[in-house]
Amino acid sequence: MRGVLEIPENLLPINDAILTGLERVEACFDMQLETDIPPVADLCAHIERYRGKMLRPTLVLLCGLAANGTSEESADLCDLWTDEHIGLGAVVEMVHMATLVHDDVLDEAEMRRRGQTVNALRGNEAAVILGDYLLASAYHLCSTVESRRAALAVGDTAMTMASGELLQLHHRENLSLDEPTYFEILERKTGALVGLSCSLGAAASGADEDTVLALKRFGVDMGTAFQIKDDLLDLTGDESVVGKSVRRDLAKGKLTLPLIHALSEAPPETRGRLLRDVRNMSETRATPAAEAAVDQLVATMRDLGSIEYAKASAERIVGRAKASLRALPESPVRDFIEFSADSVISRRF
Amino acid sequence: MRGVLEIPENLLPINDAILTGLERVEACFDMQLETDIPPVADLCAHIERYRGKMLRPTLVLLCGLAANGTSEESADLCDLWTDEHIGLGAVVEMVHMATLVHDDVLDEAEMRRRGQTVNALRGNEAAVILGDYLLASAYHLCSTVESRRAALAVGDTAMTMASGELLQLHHRENLSLDEPTYFEILERKTGALVGLSCSLGAAASGADEDTVLALKRFGVDMGTAFQIKDDLLDLTGDESVVGKSVRRDLAKGKLTLPLIHALSEAPPETRGRLLRDVRNMSETRATPAAEAAVDQLVATMRDLGSIEYAKASAERIVGRAKASLRALPESPVRDFIEFSADSVISRRF
Repeated sequence: MRGVLEIPENLLPINDAILTGLERVEACFDMQLETDIPPVADLCAHIERYRGKMLRPTLVLLCGLAANGTSEESADLCDLWTDEHIGLGAVVEMVHMATLVHDDVLDEAEMRRRGQTVNALRGNEAAVILGDYLLASAYHLCSTVESRRAALAVGDTAMTMASGELLQLHHRENLSLDEPTYFEILERKTGALVGLSCSLGAAASGADEDTVLALKRFGVDMGTAFQIKDDLLDLTGDESVVGKSVRRDLAKGKLTLPLIHALSEAPPETRGRLLRDVRNMSETRATPAAEAAVDQLVATMRDLGSIEYAKASAERIVGRAKASLRALPESPVRDFIEFSADSVISRRF
Repeated sequence: MRGVLEIPENLLPINDAILTGLERVEACFDMQLETDIPPVADLCAHIERYRGKMLRPTLVLLCGLAANGTSEESADLCDLWTDEHIGLGAVVEMVHMATLVHDDVLDEAEMRRRGQTVNALRGNEAAVILGDYLLASAYHLCSTVESRRAALAVGDTAMTMASGELLQLHHRENLSLDEPTYFEILERKTGALVGLSCSLGAAASGADEDTVLALKRFGVDMGTAFQIKDDLLDLTGDESVVGKSVRRDLAKGKLTLPLIHALSEAPPETRGRLLRDVRNMSETRATPAAEAAVDQLVATMRDLGSIEYAKASAERIVGRAKASLRALPESPVRDFIEFSADSVISRRF
């Protein structure tokens, strides 16, 4: 988990191996996007700056090692990754990038990884087509490196992700959104691709069906917890630490877990005030008054225990994710995967 | 060519077979988009109304027959199509639909096939995600029905299409756009998918490499001619006949062949006036005064022979397309494909 947390001493060799593996993934990613059309090359160069934690390819690599059942701690770990693992790592990162680019259009976000978003810099049109280009590139790469099974799974996951986004859009401004629907949106929108990353990595190492499924469940949970944390950071994080536009969810009428909890737990009067405040917030610009209104709202949610509730939910789901790992034999690689699950909760960006 | 032209008597049996084949394609298309998520189902139902000429699946089916080298004229033609032909027909139509949905966002178009566009009805956000959903569905379907070769070709073509759109966007407002660049945009943006349709159909019937390539060339040319005609209809067509928003190209700063010709052929004074007029037109709203200005511009282009020049270019390219068909043995199916190439020029919508 590049740069997210300090790595325990005994896991450093695995971390080194992952860093080497990720370099191969990056090279594959870049090669797939090579083009002799200058305006396309130009836009692709821009999104390289989006590259962050590389959570998804990291999980392809880790689950690839885990399924190999290795207990080695040496640099030889790198030899266990085939071109298939590397290619699939690039595929899942590319699908992720495509959704980031399109998400920023939907969210009218201006910042991403401390830089301007494609839509802010080049307009929505360029961002829409660039996202399509990345999706097409991911599918193309997937067909070069793998069996039909992987291509099917990637297509299926991309459908699930889009359906999650459509579901979220459908419930925008819906102030009675319930928890099960919120979780369905998260599992589709974020969990599915993280789950896919884990299962592709394991399957590429020839893992049996049960292990592939257990790791998929692990990934779906991990992605879901990651998104809850993301939603919390949008609400309570500081743009200069998080590195991307925050407090977009309320402005775009997106209800997230703390608010869903607050609205269901608040006494009638507080609930009425919350509803009024949230309605007023939708689509307002970022003025000092609007900032103060969000601070006020967050304070109310804190008083109602809703921020804590969301944190606890994320922890519970990470716990469930770690339980799925019991399908794997004990090994330093399994420890590393557990450790990366914990880092989802503790990260500040 | 459903509803485009009157079919000659001797080709009616082939036309009947195509209509039956297209019904199977539609059923496959609908099945792939079946979902139990109501907001997704709802949006997918909307785009069914976009279904028009079905040019691309028609070409999959026709080239599938042509490559079979059959001279039959009976209903048995239908038996020559495997599930692969049908599935691939649905795939190319789905990729096409995805680009229509995203194009309408880019063009801020409000009408499509005599109905409101998704972006006009549900907003740009729903349209962006629906396009992604359709692309993902197309890839998924492609991986269920076909070999890796088809999946690779579909991914590659989708990349080419997006790069064509990006190239077009890059040259927006570029009043010195030249003909070679215009043609490169057209071949990528429209030609590539029509070419893919022809080559997939032929390959699915086991055609040899030369025939597949000849039919691909035929398709790229046909798609390019089709787009020149589309650009002409945008300029000179009547919205009530064409059935979709017209005169969007000038408003969006897109130079098309008649204007490129006019700007290069006009004497200096006329050229200066044209440049001024075009600059003023960009991004203006559809007012009666703006309409009159476009009429004036079209009249000038007509005087300069530019409308005729674009028509002649389209005819020349259709001629070249038909020459590629010589790779096929003479047969009623080949006649039908020739006939459909001609219909690209003669259509009024």
